[in-house]
Amino acid sequence: MSANTLKIALIQLGGFPTKKEAIANAVNQIRIAARDKGAQLVILPECWNSTYSASEFGKNAELIPKGETTTALAQVAGELGIYLIGGTYPEQDGGKLYNTCTVFGPKGDFLGKYRKMHLFEMDIPGKCTFSEPSVLTPGDQFFTFNIGDLKVGLGICYDQRFPEFAAAYRQLGVDFLVFPSAFDTYTGPMHFELIAQARALDNSMFVALCAPARDTTKDYVAYGYSTISDPWGRVLTRARENPEILIQDLNLNMLAEIKQQIPVLRQKRSDVYELKVKK
Amino acid sequence: MSANTLKIALIQLGGFPTKKEAIANAVNQIRIAARDKGAQLVILPECWNSTYSASEFGKNAELIPKGETTTALAQVAGELGIYLIGGTYPEQDGGKLYNTCTVFGPKGDFLGKYRKMHLFEMDIPGKCTFSEPSVLTPGDQFFTFNIGDLKVGLGICYDQRFPEFAAAYRQLGVDFLVFPSAFDTYTGPMHFELIAQARALDNSMFVALCAPARDTTKDYVAYGYSTISDPWGRVLTRARENPEILIQDLNLNMLAEIKQQIPVLRQKRSDVYELKVKK
Repeated sequence: MSANTLKIALIQLGGFPTKKEAIANAVNQIRIAARDKGAQLVILPECWNSTYSASEFGKNAELIPKGETTTALAQVAGELGIYLIGGTYPEQDGGKLYNTCTVFGPKGDFLGKYRKMHLFEMDIPGKCTFSEPSVLTPGDQFFTFNIGDLKVGLGICYDQRFPEFAAAYRQLGVDFLVFPSAFDTYTGPMHFELIAQARALDNSMFVALCAPARDTTKDYVAYGYSTISDPWGRVLTRARENPEILIQDLNLNMLAEIKQQIPVLRQKRSDVYELKVKK
Repeated sequence: MSANTLKIALIQLGGFPTKKEAIANAVNQIRIAARDKGAQLVILPECWNSTYSASEFGKNAELIPKGETTTALAQVAGELGIYLIGGTYPEQDGGKLYNTCTVFGPKGDFLGKYRKMHLFEMDIPGKCTFSEPSVLTPGDQFFTFNIGDLKVGLGICYDQRFPEFAAAYRQLGVDFLVFPSAFDTYTGPMHFELIAQARALDNSMFVALCAPARDTTKDYVAYGYSTISDPWGRVLTRARENPEILIQDLNLNMLAEIKQQIPVLRQKRSDVYELKVKK
């Protein structure tokens, strides 16, 4: 890579009948993304190793980092020498359940985890009704890691609907915000790409949304359409409904460029309003 | 109108050689929007009575509400019995210059004014370079008014780039945010509609952006494309480049609907972050 380019892969994974198969497929796809396509950072979607269902979260939950999914992801990250954002899967901890995203470094080291802070709750009759708060506990910690000088932040799906959340990461110095996400097919076409673009533009950062592929046999049908926005709020690439590996070079020079050319980050009116970040 | 509908007009005004002609044309267009098309609220664009130019602001500035533009707008609002957001024009006050928007009620009463809080500053070489801070003073007060139960808030153009600004108005109970705006032709296609949709969706509110028509003979060429987004972040209507009266019914029932169905406003994590509004 050039010193100012990062090649990333968003793997829009399809579903599998068993967790074992889902993990084997993910590991295989990660190898293709890194070995064949040269990705330095690979990103997986939300809830990719099991069914996205309130009643299923408990059955599929693992301890993190001890569980089988985390173990497999750490192994393959080390094998390939890549950064890996392991998407999300249900975590159990002290009798509670979380929707959690894991991160690994190129030596296979577990860099940490992020627990979804805003739990998905929607009631659009006939279109989409879901309640994560009925079974999950929300996280309350931001999570960042560095790839060289680039600071990366993590959110999960519904978190992306909260502009304060992305702005808080901006205050933490994040220039690339990644959301494993599984929007539904009703709000997806209206909101998915719009939110990616808005968070990117408002915060002069790159934003990637990595979704599972669409599977119309499931109760909860994910939208698909994984996407990446540059700091100008332009869509760099997007997937469609099917499983797909989305490869994109991020031109990191763009970060300094937009901060210079549209200097909104230094023009906030802290005398009039101020976002206080408490964690 | 139905009790839950508000008919609004965005008048995408063309430019005129003199202020006198610009005012006469605006008054004429306001009459068409209200009398012929039935608008209950008429909205004018940014800096419509004179050239948008740092060197021209001072020449064209008026006392508000004493000046000729304000006087003419108050008169026509009263004549037609409508609410009128008078767009913006340069204001002088105590030796300072402001980019100011005026508002009038159906009795021709001057309801108040809003002074642009975030001054436009951009340096995109070869595309758009402009500095309002070199000549203008920023405002520091929000402004709202009511049409029945609907609370309307005001911003001006570059203000719309700041998500905290719209979120502050949400805290003040605003369900309809109006920005007289004159984006340029480089960032306009990238950002204008995106920002309208994002502010609307993020804050479960209607957002209207009223632009001047495009005039390629000017130094600063406005983008045009006045637009309105509903609280779902959907574009309800948009103008093109030329002068145009954009008429739209706002279905105010949508406000309660989205707050119920995508309850982000009550799911903020005030234990993690909080937007403090100081004015």
